[in-house]
Amino acid sequence: MTSPESRPGLTRERVSAFADAILAIAITLLALELPRPEAEDFRDLGGFLGGHVSAFVAFAVAFLMLWSIWRVHHSLFDQLDRLSPAVLLLHLPMLLLVVLLPYATSIFGEASALAEDAAAGHALAVAMFAGTEAVLLLCQGFMIVLALRQRLHRPDADVDRLATNAWVYLGIGIFWVLTAVMTAWSAELVPFLWLATPLIGVGIARAVRIRRTLAARS
Amino acid sequence: MTSPESRPGLTRERVSAFADAILAIAITLLALELPRPEAEDFRDLGGFLGGHVSAFVAFAVAFLMLWSIWRVHHSLFDQLDRLSPAVLLLHLPMLLLVVLLPYATSIFGEASALAEDAAAGHALAVAMFAGTEAVLLLCQGFMIVLALRQRLHRPDADVDRLATNAWVYLGIGIFWVLTAVMTAWSAELVPFLWLATPLIGVGIARAVRIRRTLAARS
Amino acid sequence: MTSPESRPGLTRERVSAFADAILAIAITLLALELPRPEAEDFRDLGGFLGGHVSAFVAFAVAFLMLWSIWRVHHSLFDQLDRLSPAVLLLHLPMLLLVVLLPYATSIFGEASALAEDAAAGHALAVAMFAGTEAVLLLCQGFMIVLALRQRLHRPDADVDRLATNAWVYLGIGIFWVLTAVMTAWSAELVPFLWLATPLIGVGIARAVRIRRTLAARS
Amino acid sequence: MTSPESRPGLTRERVSAFADAILAIAITLLALELPRPEAEDFRDLGGFLGGHVSAFVAFAVAFLMLWSIWRVHHSLFDQLDRLSPAVLLLHLPMLLLVVLLPYATSIFGEASALAEDAAAGHALAVAMFAGTEAVLLLCQGFMIVLALRQRLHRPDADVDRLATNAWVYLGIGIFWVLTAVMTAWSAELVPFLWLATPLIGVGIARAVRIRRTLAARS
Repeated sequence: MTSPESRPGLTRERVSAFADAILAIAITLLALELPRPEAEDFRDLGGFLGGHVSAFVAFAVAFLMLWSIWRVHHSLFDQLDRLSPAVLLLHLPMLLLVVLLPYATSIFGEASALAEDAAAGHALAVAMFAGTEAVLLLCQGFMIVLALRQRLHRPDADVDRLATNAWVYLGIGIFWVLTAVMTAWSAELVPFLWLATPLIGVGIARAVRIRRTLAARS
Repeated sequence: MTSPESRPGLTRERVSAFADAILAIAITLLALELPRPEAEDFRDLGGFLGGHVSAFVAFAVAFLMLWSIWRVHHSLFDQLDRLSPAVLLLHLPMLLLVVLLPYATSIFGEASALAEDAAAGHALAVAMFAGTEAVLLLCQGFMIVLALRQRLHRPDADVDRLATNAWVYLGIGIFWVLTAVMTAWSAELVPFLWLATPLIGVGIARAVRIRRTLAARS
Repeated sequence: MTSPESRPGLTRERVSAFADAILAIAITLLALELPRPEAEDFRDLGGFLGGHVSAFVAFAVAFLMLWSIWRVHHSLFDQLDRLSPAVLLLHLPMLLLVVLLPYATSIFGEASALAEDAAAGHALAVAMFAGTEAVLLLCQGFMIVLALRQRLHRPDADVDRLATNAWVYLGIGIFWVLTAVMTAWSAELVPFLWLATPLIGVGIARAVRIRRTLAARS
Repeated sequence: MTSPESRPGLTRERVSAFADAILAIAITLLALELPRPEAEDFRDLGGFLGGHVSAFVAFAVAFLMLWSIWRVHHSLFDQLDRLSPAVLLLHLPMLLLVVLLPYATSIFGEASALAEDAAAGHALAVAMFAGTEAVLLLCQGFMIVLALRQRLHRPDADVDRLATNAWVYLGIGIFWVLTAVMTAWSAELVPFLWLATPLIGVGIARAVRIRRTLAARS
């Protein structure tokens, strides 16, 4: 199973198993951070849940983000022959932010419920959440770029598709950095901007493919 | 170990390892949600535990449900040759609800202890718990249906048994949906209805087998 | 890797990976239950930690117990060719109690710190902890007995050693049941009895070997 | 995958999977211990986070330590042919301290925020954190020493590099023991000393290589 050329400490299987374990734990811990009703809240449980709807939205966004990080990581590693120390090193900030995501999600959810009373705190919480997601996306994008540059991929890997994925992740990552910056002006608007993420992803993928076709023709 | 035809990002082993990890973590986190006695509760610890018996019942129900989800998933994946994007996509709602189950279990357990004071909250908590379980069961059932339809199974797979399992899971899932709806009339009765789950499962399995025998004769 | 005769849903690797994951999570969650100092406790942190020494002892006992459960499970499964539904079913109570152990440990640790004020609660907490450990040990012992009876082991398995292990685990399990019963008379004494566990284990192992030698001679 | 000579209960894969799982869980639980703002803290969230900066530094130090423990373990186990009972036994204190590290990190972070009011508690908390890290490093170093002494490594293992790693880990471990002792005089200074850890590591690695070159010449 271990490819013969893998160097000690750089076996693909153990690195991806470790990343998967941390992703699985972080994704499950997200639910530990959901708002818990006190005894008196049970009289109007619907009202309580409705009042914390932003915490549930934050939970769903973070869940989808960790799920898609896992999907890209899985798909990338399935196409690699070996790992380089640089690819491994990129796991360090990525996993650090995966681990921090439940914390950022919890603070974002709580701050949104208190947005009117604490506007400055709300803006910082939104920026922290957007920043965490942004760096996660950028790490994922750079990991694909590095793997392609250092030719770590298998001979039969779909290089075009991997390159498209890299552009998509880097592009979405930069978009999230911009939304983090935008919280300085309007923190309330930012979560609505995030809804555009899938559209931006599809747009980048198309642009990359069109450019590739044009380049092939000329 | 990886079958030659598995596409990148669709390797059976890594998908089932990720699902297993999330199931294992969620099943263990269930115990974190059990009611903790305060210092003064230790004078009558038996009374405290007895007063929260519904939380322990909810814990046991959720534990059995996650265990059986793991069993079916394990048994299905052992008989698959490859995965399709559709089967993978069904993991998204399934794992989301696995992750939410400890939260729903905790709210159900607490609401049951306060049922008399907060009847409306209690009904909502029971409905949330039943709904979470229902969608989990339906996802599991649809996953088997999809795997059979898309012929992802190995040549030697026991197709009849898988089909029976699919009917059982879909049937039980619909039963849990109905109990979630029933909380609008009588939330206290619903947990007793759940006890019928194994009977309904056995009944559906028998009905499917009888129908199959009749179809084979004609 | 999967032996050819393993039936779907009974592959050794996935069952042991799931059990290992639950054991790893439960062993790590033990530390979440340790007593946390409040801001005012930091003025005399040594005193705070000393006042909760029983919680740290309970943590260490539970850690060692889960570690040794993992060791026996690992050693047993390495010698099995295949699994039977009965062996799989024994995992259900075993894993349920593994999941409950951090809870029982936390209650035992807290009750011990309050032993003087709440003697009845203390006795119940000690009995719960001892009972959880006892059933864990008995499940592990019965699992080995079943594997040997159903001849699930590999041709080259060390049957004598496995049988000795089974006797040791069943014997220690019964000893812990007895200590759980003894809490009705003297809950304070029981934790000191537990210290005899390694001695009892060694004693049973020796007795089994002597009897085997005698039986071989006659 | 399992090398033919591996004895039951000593398979490299399952031991490293168990260690990895515990490391992954402990590293993720670190974030659960981060200080959570109360509703009123959201008015000055930046001030709240700034006031608890020591908790975030402690989180980062513990994260890096667990990551590097995982790296060394991974790299060592990739070069081993088989395990010995002694190497396995060293996992017991190592994993115990991995599990305790989130607890020690949390107490260190909180104590640092209260350092002025509770100097004695602060010193003890710093010593506990340093001691936990020190024993972790020493266990890791001794594990490499043992593996080399008992010749558990593969024929193609880079013995010189493993030996260098052992010296580095033992040396850094002793340095952390010394910083734990130093808290008796000046607990505030100790965290700054920790920053020298990478320098000391590089220094030891160089010294070992120089000595080896000199020994090869003579």
